Amino acid sequence: MTRFDPVEVHAAWLPAEAFRAIGSRRVLLCGEGQLVETVAHEIEQACARYGGSWRQREPDEGGTDLGPGSDGDGSYELILGLTSAGSLPSAADAVVERGALGEEGFALARRDGLTAVVADEPAGLLYGLFHVVRLGEAAFAHSRPVELHRPAARLRMLDHWDNVDAHPVMGQVERGYSGGSIFWDDGVLRADFGRVRAYGRLLAACGINRVTVNNVNVHSTEAHLLTDRLGDVIAIADALRPYGIRVHLSVNFASPIALGDLPTADPLDPHVRSWWAETTRQVYESIPDFGGYVVKADSEGQPGPFAYGRTHAEGANLLADALAPFGGIVHWRAFVYNHRQDWRDRATDRARAAYDHFAPLDGQFRTNAILQVKYGPIDFQTREPVSPVIAAMPSTRLAVEFQVTQEYTGQQRHVCYLGPLWSEVLGFRPWGAEGSTVAQIAVASGGGLVAVSNVGDDPFWTGHPLAQANLYAFGRLAWDPQLDPIAVLDEWIDLTFQPFAGEGTGGAKLRGTLHAMMDESWRVYEQYTAPLGVGFMVRPGQHYGPDVDGYEYTPWGTYHFADRDGVGVDRTRASGTGFTGQYPQPWSDVYESVEQCPDELLLFFHHVAYNHVLRSGSTVIQHIYDTHFAGAQRAAEMRQAWEEIEPGGLVTPALYARVRDRLEEQVRSAQEWRDQINAYFLRKSGIGDAHQRRIY
Amino acid sequence: MTRFDPVEVHAAWLPAEAFRAIGSRRVLLCGEGQLVETVAHEIEQACARYGGSWRQREPDEGGTDLGPGSDGDGSYELILGLTSAGSLPSAADAVVERGALGEEGFALARRDGLTAVVADEPAGLLYGLFHVVRLGEAAFAHSRPVELHRPAARLRMLDHWDNVDAHPVMGQVERGYSGGSIFWDDGVLRADFGRVRAYGRLLAACGINRVTVNNVNVHSTEAHLLTDRLGDVIAIADALRPYGIRVHLSVNFASPIALGDLPTADPLDPHVRSWWAETTRQVYESIPDFGGYVVKADSEGQPGPFAYGRTHAEGANLLADALAPFGGIVHWRAFVYNHRQDWRDRATDRARAAYDHFAPLDGQFRTNAILQVKYGPIDFQTREPVSPVIAAMPSTRLAVEFQVTQEYTGQQRHVCYLGPLWSEVLGFRPWGAEGSTVAQIAVASGGGLVAVSNVGDDPFWTGHPLAQANLYAFGRLAWDPQLDPIAVLDEWIDLTFQPFAGEGTGGAKLRGTLHAMMDESWRVYEQYTAPLGVGFMVRPGQHYGPDVDGYEYTPWGTYHFADRDGVGVDRTRASGTGFTGQYPQPWSDVYESVEQCPDELLLFFHHVAYNHVLRSGSTVIQHIYDTHFAGAQRAAEMRQAWEEIEPGGLVTPALYARVRDRLEEQVRSAQEWRDQINAYFLRKSGIGDAHQRRIY
Repeated sequence: MTRFDPVEVHAAWLPAEAFRAIGSRRVLLCGEGQLVETVAHEIEQACARYGGSWRQREPDEGGTDLGPGSDGDGSYELILGLTSAGSLPSAADAVVERGALGEEGFALARRDGLTAVVADEPAGLLYGLFHVVRLGEAAFAHSRPVELHRPAARLRMLDHWDNVDAHPVMGQVERGYSGGSIFWDDGVLRADFGRVRAYGRLLAACGINRVTVNNVNVHSTEAHLLTDRLGDVIAIADALRPYGIRVHLSVNFASPIALGDLPTADPLDPHVRSWWAETTRQVYESIPDFGGYVVKADSEGQPGPFAYGRTHAEGANLLADALAPFGGIVHWRAFVYNHRQDWRDRATDRARAAYDHFAPLDGQFRTNAILQVKYGPIDFQTREPVSPVIAAMPSTRLAVEFQVTQEYTGQQRHVCYLGPLWSEVLGFRPWGAEGSTVAQIAVASGGGLVAVSNVGDDPFWTGHPLAQANLYAFGRLAWDPQLDPIAVLDEWIDLTFQPFAGEGTGGAKLRGTLHAMMDESWRVYEQYTAPLGVGFMVRPGQHYGPDVDGYEYTPWGTYHFADRDGVGVDRTRASGTGFTGQYPQPWSDVYESVEQCPDELLLFFHHVAYNHVLRSGSTVIQHIYDTHFAGAQRAAEMRQAWEEIEPGGLVTPALYARVRDRLEEQVRSAQEWRDQINAYFLRKSGIGDAHQRRIY
Repeated sequence: MTRFDPVEVHAAWLPAEAFRAIGSRRVLLCGEGQLVETVAHEIEQACARYGGSWRQREPDEGGTDLGPGSDGDGSYELILGLTSAGSLPSAADAVVERGALGEEGFALARRDGLTAVVADEPAGLLYGLFHVVRLGEAAFAHSRPVELHRPAARLRMLDHWDNVDAHPVMGQVERGYSGGSIFWDDGVLRADFGRVRAYGRLLAACGINRVTVNNVNVHSTEAHLLTDRLGDVIAIADALRPYGIRVHLSVNFASPIALGDLPTADPLDPHVRSWWAETTRQVYESIPDFGGYVVKADSEGQPGPFAYGRTHAEGANLLADALAPFGGIVHWRAFVYNHRQDWRDRATDRARAAYDHFAPLDGQFRTNAILQVKYGPIDFQTREPVSPVIAAMPSTRLAVEFQVTQEYTGQQRHVCYLGPLWSEVLGFRPWGAEGSTVAQIAVASGGGLVAVSNVGDDPFWTGHPLAQANLYAFGRLAWDPQLDPIAVLDEWIDLTFQPFAGEGTGGAKLRGTLHAMMDESWRVYEQYTAPLGVGFMVRPGQHYGPDVDGYEYTPWGTYHFADRDGVGVDRTRASGTGFTGQYPQPWSDVYESVEQCPDELLLFFHHVAYNHVLRSGSTVIQHIYDTHFAGAQRAAEMRQAWEEIEPGGLVTPALYARVRDRLEEQVRSAQEWRDQINAYFLRKSGIGDAHQRRIY
């Protein structure tokens, strides 16, 4: 696809039909600014399609009551207005103090037949518009008291792991499962940015406001995006700006050497400091709303401050200082560990690494430096405990990092709706029931949420069409971490499929099928893959499919230590690596105790015998067999459910076929996982299945 | 290195100094032809360097006794002459009937102070020259009765797995560990063929007479070597022809479709047959001495006759018929197996595949078709039984295929002298003590020996300088399979290092060190890698380093079936796959019997308990521990031995350093093998080491 064709590219959660409720009404828009123009354009398109009418009030017009039956411009049914745009219609007045909605918030109300959306700033109006889209006819069905909508976190960011040059091993998009990059194609910025604009629109509609355009592993070509290839970044920023999205750039810590011809990248060297200051100044000259930098330093081969005997705070502050005059931010990743570990060495524990490196630095980071912490201590596994770093740095701004791209969760060949995983993490309370949640910690610190994007130039954006739901859900949970992930999924179904349902009953059936397939899909994936939180039983390198011992004797620090007697990693203080001690109470003791530790994390924290009895009452070995048979069975049931859907109407034949093909692979892969894991543990333990099912 | 520089490229076994004995004498050459000119050039160079004199007798000169003290052209000390060149000096007359030496043989004698080499054909003279080089001063030291030297096999071939385009996964040379191709560089034929000519000279000096220029996996660009890129093949043929080497080409069975625009490649289709006939005719128009085709069909994704419901005999005969009018040969590989096997299926046995596919076709192949059979039933493992195909096809020409490139034997990072392995295979008697050897079967069938080359554009040709010995030994064993591989190694040491030794004693020490390092190096490699013939415990894909379960749950058909009780593959008729039944007696029963089966092949044929007692008296598990500790220790001793060599003189600093660096890696890797294999089996068996050594 060389030119973006909105017919060939799936509309995701913004099909034209989703705008029917707005487009068939009389709409007034009050306000000015680039994002208001975006709103105007959306309304104009919708009304043109569905026969409604709209008007944008000129700045110098006085405010009048423009409710139903009023004179003047006639009776409006929907008004969207900035609080700065003069007096607003009755439904919207006295909603809130001007300024209370913030940069991105909005208020919604309906009274006397008029639905009103009010915002202090244009971005809020844009988010308000998409909220009305989400509501559809419900926005006009009955009176609504004033509702305030403000994002929990100011920073709601997607990181792209896109390369400019297709990397010989990692490809155009590292860990991308959706085709090529929407930004670059084999070294060249795409000429057609229609796709980028469409992407920005989708992100605005779910609440994302920051995008990092390139891979955190910054290779040589990509390093130049900071300087002589800044034009690429300018172009992307221009395309995303109308959707309230600011761009960030992943930079290489050694840039002063590679790009600036300096002999060092030492963060305390004055020449290095002025190089970054001047380079950053030039970036802002071209992109005044540039978001800032993302850095993966001293991690998996990337350069960093350790080479100069400096701390990561000194490294991060170098960039923070360069960005500060322009309001920019540096996201500094906490993913630092020894990836050349000796598997023979059981004292070193990769799970400890981020805490050991960063907790001592609490309070040393600048206020415009954000420590970006993966949600678990290892690496985006299907099941990990929440990273102890999150509770360990009260004086540091923290962003929690998720992975929308399904690197370890089925690579968009498996249905795996991740909303419930993220929701569980966001709602985790490191200090127990009375303490803050992870989401509250991140928000209160002034950080936010970050995730690795899952889109590419695939016609369905995400390879697996149902993986769109993950992208949507991340945006919505970043906006409001308390949302029920199943309700968010329902929103996504509504927007994506329901506009096509019309008055028929097919919609209800499809909704039921999708919920049946997706609600539990993360736990199903967990069932047929690595058991009880032990993690990493994937094929090395590609991270897809089972290979129980694949990482067992490697330098990557990810081991399960299965022998003929038992399995799991002893991370206790009493006899193991002491990782449990990185948690505050009560978790420090809960995880330490083999009796209290939650079943789903047992093998993450403990090495136990195969006949150890879980809290569930099952033994470890029988649990392994049972969950693997059940998980593969449930994958087969997903396929069965999908086969009962009729293609056409709500589900286009192309989308139907794509999902069907991926389900074939999921069923095959789930059986492979089942058989390999079960065979591995039967051969090792010698303990048969209590139900005598076939194990090879 | 863009231009071939004989100073920068190591001389291997043809340093100028190796020609001192010839070059310091009075030499007469009698005969005509291109290869005689090659001999003349060698003598001329040698005499120019070492002060000798030489003359080439004109065809119309009469024969005279030209021994020492005679008149005429004076007293010669060495004469090389064709039997067709008229009467020869006394030392050479009446040696043999003219014609008895064949195309490539020669006779050597020394009498009355004159050393004479006589051949029927120019190629024989060339081989005779290099034989005198090998002898050095010994050729002139004392009288010698007439010795006849004729190659055992007419076909002594090296297959290059070189690609024209660097393959995205496999690189420029598939399974190449010596840099790029000497023929191609990233899609383009090299402009400088100095390296190719030097290679041809080295091959002639060890007895190789055929080279297949491209990879048996024929990708799209490489397919065109047969037609519009034939120019590349012509150039290589021109460069190798002066050394008596004919070129062969790997072709894609689907060429009629890919290159000929035909709708089929069915071997019985008349259009296909005439396409191959005409295409082949055009090849011979440009290369009259073209050797023929090599085909990997229906193997690991390559196309073949199965797609048309035809047999492999029908496939091979198609190409044989096209080649027959021009005296060409097709080498048809027997490496056909199901590489998409289900690991759950224990009935399918990859070891059986070649026999099952090909034995029923015996007698159906044309006389110019040669079935090319890997020496073992699996794939160039460090230890395999001899392929049963070799004894199963009495009416088929057979070539036995070895792998000089060390894919599974340390990838030229480990010292692994393969002469003893090949010698063991060549001397194996499938029908027991009274029957023929493998070498005799291949030779008598009219086939020969083939091996995958290990050279590249590396300055030492083979990455590891000591891996040159493998290339040399293959040529020598192909010429005479009964040679003692340790004596061949000694020849190689002599040629490569001794000319520099002069009168000092350093030569003896170096010779001792190299024998200490290399003589047993194959068995040492076996000690620290997969035990007791079980094979394939390497990292998938790259085939380097340990990964015990790496192939255990894959489709490749290479399993060890280790569980907590035992390990090995049951290939017996009684309870296993029945593979033992593919052997004639006595091996059929020897391999069937767990008591009689040789220890080194026990796990290839039997699944036994860890405490099973070997013929050696040790248990399987203790044998695993003992050999792995011993093998890693011996690798460390190799390094130690090398460190006692003084660089300079016999061993240039560059060569010294290269070997030292590779030994570092070998020691590291051997320890890794030791620890992973031991840890794996301790964890699985629970049986400790009798000597309480450290196992992780």
